[in-house]
Amino acid sequence: MATYIETLTMDTTGKGTYEITSEVENVVKRSGYEKGNVTVFIQHTSASLIIYENADPSARVDLESFFERLVPEDLPYFTHTYEGSDDMPSHIRMVLTRTSETIPFMNERLCLGTWQGIFVFEHRRCQHRRKIIVSVSD
Amino acid sequence: MATYIETLTMDTTGKGTYEITSEVENVVKRSGYEKGNVTVFIQHTSASLIIYENADPSARVDLESFFERLVPEDLPYFTHTYEGSDDMPSHIRMVLTRTSETIPFMNERLCLGTWQGIFVFEHRRCQHRRKIIVSVSD
Amino acid sequence: MATYIETLTMDTTGKGTYEITSEVENVVKRSGYEKGNVTVFIQHTSASLIIYENADPSARVDLESFFERLVPEDLPYFTHTYEGSDDMPSHIRMVLTRTSETIPFMNERLCLGTWQGIFVFEHRRCQHRRKIIVSVSD
Repeated sequence: MATYIETLTMDTTGKGTYEITSEVENVVKRSGYEKGNVTVFIQHTSASLIIYENADPSARVDLESFFERLVPEDLPYFTHTYEGSDDMPSHIRMVLTRTSETIPFMNERLCLGTWQGIFVFEHRRCQHRRKIIVSVSD
Repeated sequence: MATYIETLTMDTTGKGTYEITSEVENVVKRSGYEKGNVTVFIQHTSASLIIYENADPSARVDLESFFERLVPEDLPYFTHTYEGSDDMPSHIRMVLTRTSETIPFMNERLCLGTWQGIFVFEHRRCQHRRKIIVSVSD
Repeated sequence: MATYIETLTMDTTGKGTYEITSEVENVVKRSGYEKGNVTVFIQHTSASLIIYENADPSARVDLESFFERLVPEDLPYFTHTYEGSDDMPSHIRMVLTRTSETIPFMNERLCLGTWQGIFVFEHRRCQHRRKIIVSVSD
């Protein structure tokens, strides 16, 4: 059978993590495939994907705090600055996380662990419409 | 043909790297497929996957030392602390490494480079039974 | 249909980022598949892959500057040093970026965003011939 592909959109409202687990699972269901792999791919260089703890919101707060310190805005040696001080850190934070993830599924359900969710990690301050390609193979 | 999926378990005994290359290669052999891709997916948010130097153990020692310093325990701004001081760093170290890797194979053998091995990177101090989904497609 | 696999080579001339987007797209075209996923896998532990901003070179300069500071050479606690001071940092920089990426394609074209390109991220100072496996499935 052929690969089944859909594009999801996520409207982000500033820096932070946005869960898309159920949206991805719905694409798997619509594919009609029972068992296989789903690839999630984000089409941006200032937002990324993570698979992360989805039970306790404090784990997400601390993650965001950590990244603010690991890749601060206004590092004196940055030269790529014309789009604002949150632009260059957004590219680095993206590189340090993921652009694609591939997740096996069985019985039309993602093989995620108990505490795992799929998230868009938005690295820019302004609102953005983010596009995520979801590709299902059996 | 359909995707072939198995679950591996790795019993970890504290922070460190644990090689699973031969276990993954055995799943590929049991799939019966000669050529394709294998996706390795770890079902946890406090352990991760890396593809790493598997010849010289000192490279693994230094990697672990680096991560202890890059994401230290007891950062004063962490709020997600009720499971112990190694919990929140484990989530961040996981995000900075990988949850899924996809590796092509030919003639039933993984297309790994000479020095590459597949490792579980355990970020917690206690013993854990880690589950890894291995999904083989031709 | 079977997975279509080719090996690309990239001759690097020192630390930096080297775009391979068109080479990957050509492999997809040669596969003859119209829709599916392409997995890009680098067979090295001192070079890695990133999907990154390919419009403005300053974003690549700043990325490289950041990694020089995040994982400096000559950290006093490194023990894996016999191959030179750029060796151990190369392994860590590789772990912090990617070894494999999976990218959906449609109508024989990669589903990359407007500003996304695929790059080899070379972490060693000397010249290297890097091998990248490109695996196309429909």
